[in-house]
Amino acid sequence: MTPVSLARIMVEPLVRAALLEDLGLAGDLTTDAIVPAGLTARAALVAREPGVVAGLDLAKLAFALIDPSIAMHAEINDGATVTTGGVIARVSGPARGILMAERTALNFLGHISGIASATASIVEAVRGTRAKITCTRKTTPGLRAVEKYAVRAGGGANHRFGLDDAILIKDNHVAIAGGIAQALRRARAAAGHLVKIEVEIDNLDQLKDALAEGADAVLLDNMSLDMLGAAVGIVNSRVVTEASGRVTPKSAPAVAATGVDLISVGWLTHSAAVLDIGLDLED
Amino acid sequence: MTPVSLARIMVEPLVRAALLEDLGLAGDLTTDAIVPAGLTARAALVAREPGVVAGLDLAKLAFALIDPSIAMHAEINDGATVTTGGVIARVSGPARGILMAERTALNFLGHISGIASATASIVEAVRGTRAKITCTRKTTPGLRAVEKYAVRAGGGANHRFGLDDAILIKDNHVAIAGGIAQALRRARAAAGHLVKIEVEIDNLDQLKDALAEGADAVLLDNMSLDMLGAAVGIVNSRVVTEASGRVTPKSAPAVAATGVDLISVGWLTHSAAVLDIGLDLED
Amino acid sequence: MTPVSLARIMVEPLVRAALLEDLGLAGDLTTDAIVPAGLTARAALVAREPGVVAGLDLAKLAFALIDPSIAMHAEINDGATVTTGGVIARVSGPARGILMAERTALNFLGHISGIASATASIVEAVRGTRAKITCTRKTTPGLRAVEKYAVRAGGGANHRFGLDDAILIKDNHVAIAGGIAQALRRARAAAGHLVKIEVEIDNLDQLKDALAEGADAVLLDNMSLDMLGAAVGIVNSRVVTEASGRVTPKSAPAVAATGVDLISVGWLTHSAAVLDIGLDLED
Amino acid sequence: MTPVSLARIMVEPLVRAALLEDLGLAGDLTTDAIVPAGLTARAALVAREPGVVAGLDLAKLAFALIDPSIAMHAEINDGATVTTGGVIARVSGPARGILMAERTALNFLGHISGIASATASIVEAVRGTRAKITCTRKTTPGLRAVEKYAVRAGGGANHRFGLDDAILIKDNHVAIAGGIAQALRRARAAAGHLVKIEVEIDNLDQLKDALAEGADAVLLDNMSLDMLGAAVGIVNSRVVTEASGRVTPKSAPAVAATGVDLISVGWLTHSAAVLDIGLDLED
Amino acid sequence: MTPVSLARIMVEPLVRAALLEDLGLAGDLTTDAIVPAGLTARAALVAREPGVVAGLDLAKLAFALIDPSIAMHAEINDGATVTTGGVIARVSGPARGILMAERTALNFLGHISGIASATASIVEAVRGTRAKITCTRKTTPGLRAVEKYAVRAGGGANHRFGLDDAILIKDNHVAIAGGIAQALRRARAAAGHLVKIEVEIDNLDQLKDALAEGADAVLLDNMSLDMLGAAVGIVNSRVVTEASGRVTPKSAPAVAATGVDLISVGWLTHSAAVLDIGLDLED
Amino acid sequence: MTPVSLARIMVEPLVRAALLEDLGLAGDLTTDAIVPAGLTARAALVAREPGVVAGLDLAKLAFALIDPSIAMHAEINDGATVTTGGVIARVSGPARGILMAERTALNFLGHISGIASATASIVEAVRGTRAKITCTRKTTPGLRAVEKYAVRAGGGANHRFGLDDAILIKDNHVAIAGGIAQALRRARAAAGHLVKIEVEIDNLDQLKDALAEGADAVLLDNMSLDMLGAAVGIVNSRVVTEASGRVTPKSAPAVAATGVDLISVGWLTHSAAVLDIGLDLED
Repeated sequence: MTPVSLARIMVEPLVRAALLEDLGLAGDLTTDAIVPAGLTARAALVAREPGVVAGLDLAKLAFALIDPSIAMHAEINDGATVTTGGVIARVSGPARGILMAERTALNFLGHISGIASATASIVEAVRGTRAKITCTRKTTPGLRAVEKYAVRAGGGANHRFGLDDAILIKDNHVAIAGGIAQALRRARAAAGHLVKIEVEIDNLDQLKDALAEGADAVLLDNMSLDMLGAAVGIVNSRVVTEASGRVTPKSAPAVAATGVDLISVGWLTHSAAVLDIGLDLED
Repeated sequence: MTPVSLARIMVEPLVRAALLEDLGLAGDLTTDAIVPAGLTARAALVAREPGVVAGLDLAKLAFALIDPSIAMHAEINDGATVTTGGVIARVSGPARGILMAERTALNFLGHISGIASATASIVEAVRGTRAKITCTRKTTPGLRAVEKYAVRAGGGANHRFGLDDAILIKDNHVAIAGGIAQALRRARAAAGHLVKIEVEIDNLDQLKDALAEGADAVLLDNMSLDMLGAAVGIVNSRVVTEASGRVTPKSAPAVAATGVDLISVGWLTHSAAVLDIGLDLED
Repeated sequence: MTPVSLARIMVEPLVRAALLEDLGLAGDLTTDAIVPAGLTARAALVAREPGVVAGLDLAKLAFALIDPSIAMHAEINDGATVTTGGVIARVSGPARGILMAERTALNFLGHISGIASATASIVEAVRGTRAKITCTRKTTPGLRAVEKYAVRAGGGANHRFGLDDAILIKDNHVAIAGGIAQALRRARAAAGHLVKIEVEIDNLDQLKDALAEGADAVLLDNMSLDMLGAAVGIVNSRVVTEASGRVTPKSAPAVAATGVDLISVGWLTHSAAVLDIGLDLED
Repeated sequence: MTPVSLARIMVEPLVRAALLEDLGLAGDLTTDAIVPAGLTARAALVAREPGVVAGLDLAKLAFALIDPSIAMHAEINDGATVTTGGVIARVSGPARGILMAERTALNFLGHISGIASATASIVEAVRGTRAKITCTRKTTPGLRAVEKYAVRAGGGANHRFGLDDAILIKDNHVAIAGGIAQALRRARAAAGHLVKIEVEIDNLDQLKDALAEGADAVLLDNMSLDMLGAAVGIVNSRVVTEASGRVTPKSAPAVAATGVDLISVGWLTHSAAVLDIGLDLED
Repeated sequence: MTPVSLARIMVEPLVRAALLEDLGLAGDLTTDAIVPAGLTARAALVAREPGVVAGLDLAKLAFALIDPSIAMHAEINDGATVTTGGVIARVSGPARGILMAERTALNFLGHISGIASATASIVEAVRGTRAKITCTRKTTPGLRAVEKYAVRAGGGANHRFGLDDAILIKDNHVAIAGGIAQALRRARAAAGHLVKIEVEIDNLDQLKDALAEGADAVLLDNMSLDMLGAAVGIVNSRVVTEASGRVTPKSAPAVAATGVDLISVGWLTHSAAVLDIGLDLED
Repeated sequence: MTPVSLARIMVEPLVRAALLEDLGLAGDLTTDAIVPAGLTARAALVAREPGVVAGLDLAKLAFALIDPSIAMHAEINDGATVTTGGVIARVSGPARGILMAERTALNFLGHISGIASATASIVEAVRGTRAKITCTRKTTPGLRAVEKYAVRAGGGANHRFGLDDAILIKDNHVAIAGGIAQALRRARAAAGHLVKIEVEIDNLDQLKDALAEGADAVLLDNMSLDMLGAAVGIVNSRVVTEASGRVTPKSAPAVAATGVDLISVGWLTHSAAVLDIGLDLED
């Protein structure tokens, strides 16, 4: 796991914007009408289904930004597993604030935990192999830092964070350059000394070009298991091998068994279902 | 369908932020290294699976914000169905800009189309009944306006946009108020003349209180089909009836058959998978 | 009164921007030159004329954002009446900070209190009738949430907060639709189940169409008192009736006597004079 | 008149924020429901009362930001007088966009024109005297640049724009410094070579101190007409004299007759009523 | 020295943006990998060369924004002189946060101290003369308020802060106006009563026009020492005289000896080298 | 040269903020007073000293954001050399806008060109060796993307853009980890597959540890020329070698002669003087 940080300074603008999105100009009409201003309450954040929880700091921040006097105490840490009915955190303070922030806190917590849980399930599926599970740049607009964090919390590794932190030569770049070799040469000439280069490979001929031109990693895209195995053999641990192409928890073990170093999975960040978490008032 | 608008002034900040999230401080290292500055290209946005497309304006904006000389021509309109391999739009202009904006354009288009497609599938499942499919406030933080639009594009209806545009009395509010009747009375006393009031109902006794106190709509939460049918009978069209509780395309027809007016479905916005769409360079 | 909230998260950006507007790049040249850095002071916010005070939280925030060690203690609550010379709040802390924030704090407090006071005067004028006083969307750009709050603090009710939270069919919409009936039918087809519909009515024929087509409320625009009374009679409590058109505290009683439910008054938010409040240093 | 500019780059953020304030997340429900997407319209901005118009660029920008294909043609320039029924500008383009932007455009235009009109009325009242009419820092939070512009458009002059562009020693500063002389000495020691210094004067003794210590201007606060005249005589044109204190168009001529150079009027920016302007669809 | 303020509300957005610029989406990869989460540390900010320190509040804020539990204690105040090896401040708290904020804190502190040191060196060079050293508008984009503060901390005076706080007629304005006299007349007609006017002068004829038309200050641009002396003689203390044109600590004494009031030095803000300051961990 | 891009979407917020910083609330008092609104002008951006020009797009944007009708035509491209008096670009359009944007355009152009020129001078000094010149993270707060671009324009290479795009183990990290080997092992365990690792080395023992643990690059900090040469010999091209420590154009050839791959130079971005560029009106 890459323990990359998620500093409060990075996520506070997201939580603030989400709260304002929900409050509009009129605020919480229902709570204002029904809940007395001075009332305090206690509540629990409870898992409605099993999974891996992540994003507790964002939920806590949602409550605190609405009312600094709301306290949230996490019962578990990010990355921990929870079962149905398990209490994730307890919240206490002014009842109005708790109810105003509830949905935003849960939307963040459910979304991040959903990605962490999906990651964990596929990480579990390949346990015992050398394969690490990694994400892609197919993230929800505006939430990339948070979703990359969720992948780490679920036991996965992070791929590139953006167009800016590594070179990844895709099929369209290869086509424009006129071939793997030409693309890699241009990339190497331009790359800074701390910039790695990966190249997408569709067949074994391309793989040989990539190795000859000194790629740091090869992305083996949508290959059959046989071709993946052959590619891993050719590479022979000289560079990092990454398999991609609609891998699921079910298909992952066979892909991992080919010996690839990484399996990248786009749906972790773009299509994982939320983890269902609710807020229950306590007496 | 509620044809609520999605003005460019509302979505441009989202698209701009998503592009900057991908570019970082260094920009697109790969494209800068490999693609000549003067090269132009033509490309097609192609569906990799069938579904309902939505969000074309956001994809177009992603390209235009990177380079105003990139033209995107949509082949279909938001809300249209596409089959695998179907061309959704064509893009032409500077190759660098097309590749720099590609992932952001596709992330928006896939996310919005995914929600529209999920909506359409469940709308289709209840065709012929009186039930409309509606979303919830369980949306992805920062993307609520866009996701609500996606639901409309898929043939669904919008529920509340936020805490501010209607009163929805949930179980926690009822508990605090000391009952359905008390909660509704407080709500009615506070509500502006253009604010409707809906109340969550867990059993038929509560339903009678709700009707007696003049709710505009009742949210029948997690009820059995039998109880739903009984509730619809009691209401007898006096107020709007909404069923909720993990409804899927499979379970939706039976829920709709109870005669409810609305079925609200949280996963449309929080857990729908993206629609897989790719960008193919054309000669 | 609609006790809709005004959360700190909603107003802090306004107060921050107003302070920066006043400070520019050079800060407070006068205070820096004259007031010693270590000096503390005590001061009172004092009404220079009678009225209803509102916006105390924004004044407090102005001082706190300049220097968190400035304490402001309100002597009365928002919505309370003050007489000339009445002390509204006391402030103590570093003298430089108090003087730097003074004008911004007073500009907010005077503006919001001015609207609250104007509202209270016209609410008082119709006391004993069924008529509530309500505001419009004719608000000062950027300050709508705050001004709507001021109306509530003065005892008024809020109309729509924006284009997004209810349907209000104005004369221009009617003209485009080709009549009241057509406009209402289109509105009803599009409206979500929690969206109410009001329609502007210029004569009694239109009123009958509006009732027939099921409007939730009718806006009786610029009608004579006689016509207002006739309209109220026709409506006979089936829908909400709203009178509008340059109503003043003087004319309000006669309008209210027609039996309308609401009187909307644009000048509350666009033309009310500020309440004159000053800051006096105390020994 | 000080013809200080109001560049588009300065006001676009204000107009954009005001539009988004009105649109919320759902946009214009009414227009979307009733007005066909392809319909074009023509409309006139018409004065409902006489006054001085200002802020046409902001109204134009409101329409353009909603839809760049909307054209607005001003029939008069900022600063021009309009009579009841006079056409201020004509707008043409997509009907939806015109109606969506209408209220924001009018809110800006009415507010700015209201201040210009109020300024013009008091400028007119002192015509023939040496007195210029000037504003204060008592402006509406967030709108200072725009309101200062409105004062110029109405024929007035601008006072300080903020705490940062001149030194204005108020009574509280004098009290802290221990007297006019001490305050002025500190100010002069700190002031940059392009920073002028004005001091508030409550009596003629203070005036002598101010002159002795070399103030650039004296603010004669809340003085009787007799004392004002005496002060002007003592000053004898050596420094700028400014009278302040609840001056109205009615009282202004007598104040001006004392021979003061400037009359500052806070209510121009904090309490002027809007100029009533409407939008009429044309065939 | 002009003790103009630098309120936290003014600089916090700068510090926040600089931290986010350094953290990107992934945060501090190195620190996260190597430094245990619970580890605390103590460190000293140490001068690597002699100079004048300024900007301590920004460094402190950088640490606090990353982690409020980091304490920074300044050993000296802004404006104090430090020698090589001198300890400027001590920092203690979570080691991760200290290392994450280190570069941003030092970048601010070094930049601001560099300007203060450069200012101090040229101020020292003219000690004993009447000449004050002042800055220009040739500042680093985005940092003007901070850089103007640095000049004051180094013992210099501030010139205009922007286009908005005084009139400075440059050669291009003179050319457009058709001469010094015409330009000054237009300026005087437009200037508010608290706005001073300075005019750039290239020869002694222009100087006479400037004096005749009542400029408040004259900018003697790129003149020889002889011409400067002659100009000062002609002015004879009637207005402020400012010399400009690539003045260095070496050439400054001779310029000052001509008797000018001010020497403006662009390179203080656009080309001063940073003061080298490092962070040393302490046991 | 690393041809990393500098998209308009990345720099427009900087240019916009810089213009607003200069305009304040009152705009350009001088230009408004003196320059007729309708006047057009032509001007040249002219080098006052020789150097390498960069940042033309930002200057062009400054003019365009003030007035889109101002045209700027670059006579040379970024990275080109200019001699004293050389025309860099020509500008034509409304005279007011040209003068309002002038200082902001020049501040950007001078700052970026200054860095490019400094880079070019040291690149030239090591021509013929294998050494590339690279920058550091010691950049001006808020301007990192722009300054990194300037280094490339001057012929240099970019080092890390932030804490997020590579691992660079500094002396403080080594101290906390307890040695080079421990630090590198933690880094390697945490690093993603596209993240390179560089480590700071103070002596040859540390160098051997770094090589043994598989660093991708070694930062040879403040070493004597002899030790640098010895280190290069030990490394023997297995990893990238980077020399750092106050290298100047004068000392650079000797450092390069040791055979290092990179020489990093902090002062390129934190202390380079601006390139002096002026705007001359043309007839």
